[in-house]
Amino acid sequence: MTPNQLLKIYQTLAPHLHPTPILTSSFFNKITGSSLFFKCENFQKTGSFKYRGALYAVIKALQKNPELSEVVTHSSGNFGQALAKAAQTYHIQATVIVPEDAPKAKIEAMKQYGAKIFLCKPGNQNRKETLNKYLEQYPKSYFIHPYNHNDVIAGHTSLVTELLKQDIQPDLIVVPIGGGGLISGISLAARQWFPKALIIGVEPENANDAYLSLLQNKIFSIDKVNTIADGLKASVGELCFNYIKKYVKEILTVSEEQIYSAFTLIPERMKIIAEPSSATTLAAVINHPSLFAKKNVVLILSGGNVDMTRYAQFQH
Amino acid sequence: MTPNQLLKIYQTLAPHLHPTPILTSSFFNKITGSSLFFKCENFQKTGSFKYRGALYAVIKALQKNPELSEVVTHSSGNFGQALAKAAQTYHIQATVIVPEDAPKAKIEAMKQYGAKIFLCKPGNQNRKETLNKYLEQYPKSYFIHPYNHNDVIAGHTSLVTELLKQDIQPDLIVVPIGGGGLISGISLAARQWFPKALIIGVEPENANDAYLSLLQNKIFSIDKVNTIADGLKASVGELCFNYIKKYVKEILTVSEEQIYSAFTLIPERMKIIAEPSSATTLAAVINHPSLFAKKNVVLILSGGNVDMTRYAQFQH
Repeated sequence: MTPNQLLKIYQTLAPHLHPTPILTSSFFNKITGSSLFFKCENFQKTGSFKYRGALYAVIKALQKNPELSEVVTHSSGNFGQALAKAAQTYHIQATVIVPEDAPKAKIEAMKQYGAKIFLCKPGNQNRKETLNKYLEQYPKSYFIHPYNHNDVIAGHTSLVTELLKQDIQPDLIVVPIGGGGLISGISLAARQWFPKALIIGVEPENANDAYLSLLQNKIFSIDKVNTIADGLKASVGELCFNYIKKYVKEILTVSEEQIYSAFTLIPERMKIIAEPSSATTLAAVINHPSLFAKKNVVLILSGGNVDMTRYAQFQH
Repeated sequence: MTPNQLLKIYQTLAPHLHPTPILTSSFFNKITGSSLFFKCENFQKTGSFKYRGALYAVIKALQKNPELSEVVTHSSGNFGQALAKAAQTYHIQATVIVPEDAPKAKIEAMKQYGAKIFLCKPGNQNRKETLNKYLEQYPKSYFIHPYNHNDVIAGHTSLVTELLKQDIQPDLIVVPIGGGGLISGISLAARQWFPKALIIGVEPENANDAYLSLLQNKIFSIDKVNTIADGLKASVGELCFNYIKKYVKEILTVSEEQIYSAFTLIPERMKIIAEPSSATTLAAVINHPSLFAKKNVVLILSGGNVDMTRYAQFQH
């Protein structure tokens, strides 16, 4: 993408977004020996960065087809909420195909944003079948994949364009990888705005499909992923994998224990809520100090949607 | 205090403080029908507003006596941490008299800031006796009361002076009352900078000593206070009571249930951690809507030092 394309995306989205703050912590700077800049997407509308991509995809879909009256996606969490709010903003309907075992609070939040909920059995295959059936029945509905979609990825570039106004010169940008939509958007924008910055991906050891995919140079998915970082369970998308191969310097993995520890340290020290998926970035910096020492490091805190009882379950 | 005195206090403190942000929440604006401005002292150094007063008292003490080598206070929580860090900043010793039943995490935090800890049995009387013995033994040590001290109160005025730069025109300022140091400082500054703003105090129903004191026009203390808002257990100080009588429009009380509810809603909706004492302000606004409707309301989130397991204990 060119600088002008990136600016245009940003200008389209900016009136509808919270410009999320950058927070610093002298405690975390001290223990890591780095200058850490936490980009707080937990403060974004709907509680995660997903709103950037969802909103942009809705805007583009309406540009292409002004008669569009419905968008549909599958999600058990943050993207569903984001798309529901984006659709509500433009007075169209959002339908979200949700696995039966998704957290009730998240389903409730989607409904509050006006989404129609369509339950399916858990598992990727069931999700796809339900989606296909739905689209057969409602062929005018437009499917927006939660990450493997160019407009969604384009929307996420706005996060890095926003950094331009925030006086940061990152040496490294550390990004959690679920399906890979966020790191794709960040890479595309960083390439233009901060060409010297290295892009570092982070995955839980228990959900290291992007890491394994890079190793084998083909997409590898993991059955039955079990990690506290529930936002990172998705398998990397094809579009995203291509961007990751091209632009991501390295993928670090972190253990469940390292994630829990960072997850509880963030509210203790910074007084903010970041979901476990976000805490993986801090876990990576704490546990790979030599890579980050004395550098300006931007950590993407991707979201803040978490059941507060988790803090007790994993307290140590 | 005159505007120039207030400015001088602010200029003395500003280089050492975090200018704490003001956050807004469209959700809370919607449910209250007000424009709420959360002044986030949970992001202040040491995790609470107490650092403002502690630091100012240390600076003034050193101005009066440059040979001073030790300050002492009694505290089970936030003021102890604040004084410890303030003393550390000026390379003098802080000693904190702490009741044996104080949370270990808070004692640990004080030690990390270099404080000497002196344990005493719980209860006001024991605390005073231990302090007096300590001062007999170390007569060169300077006692700084956590709230009933003019320099501590003067330091807290900096919070309102800081609002001048934050483009807020408050109709009401809502402040939790423990010992009354915070609301005293806020009242003194608001009188100059925002003379039309009403100052509203908040207490837990279970710790409503300032409310009862106002009613009887003399200081009334409550034995055995039991509230989740542990920062508000202290009895109102004499200096503070005089300011409260003079400047505080009204004291609202909130139930434990109302406090719990606000305490859990804040991280859910705003993705920040505010301790239960802070949450009393939001509880008051939610439960007394007519007083605040359509007004610009500044709520002081006084601190963020909380054991994260509390969110599970009180989840409903």
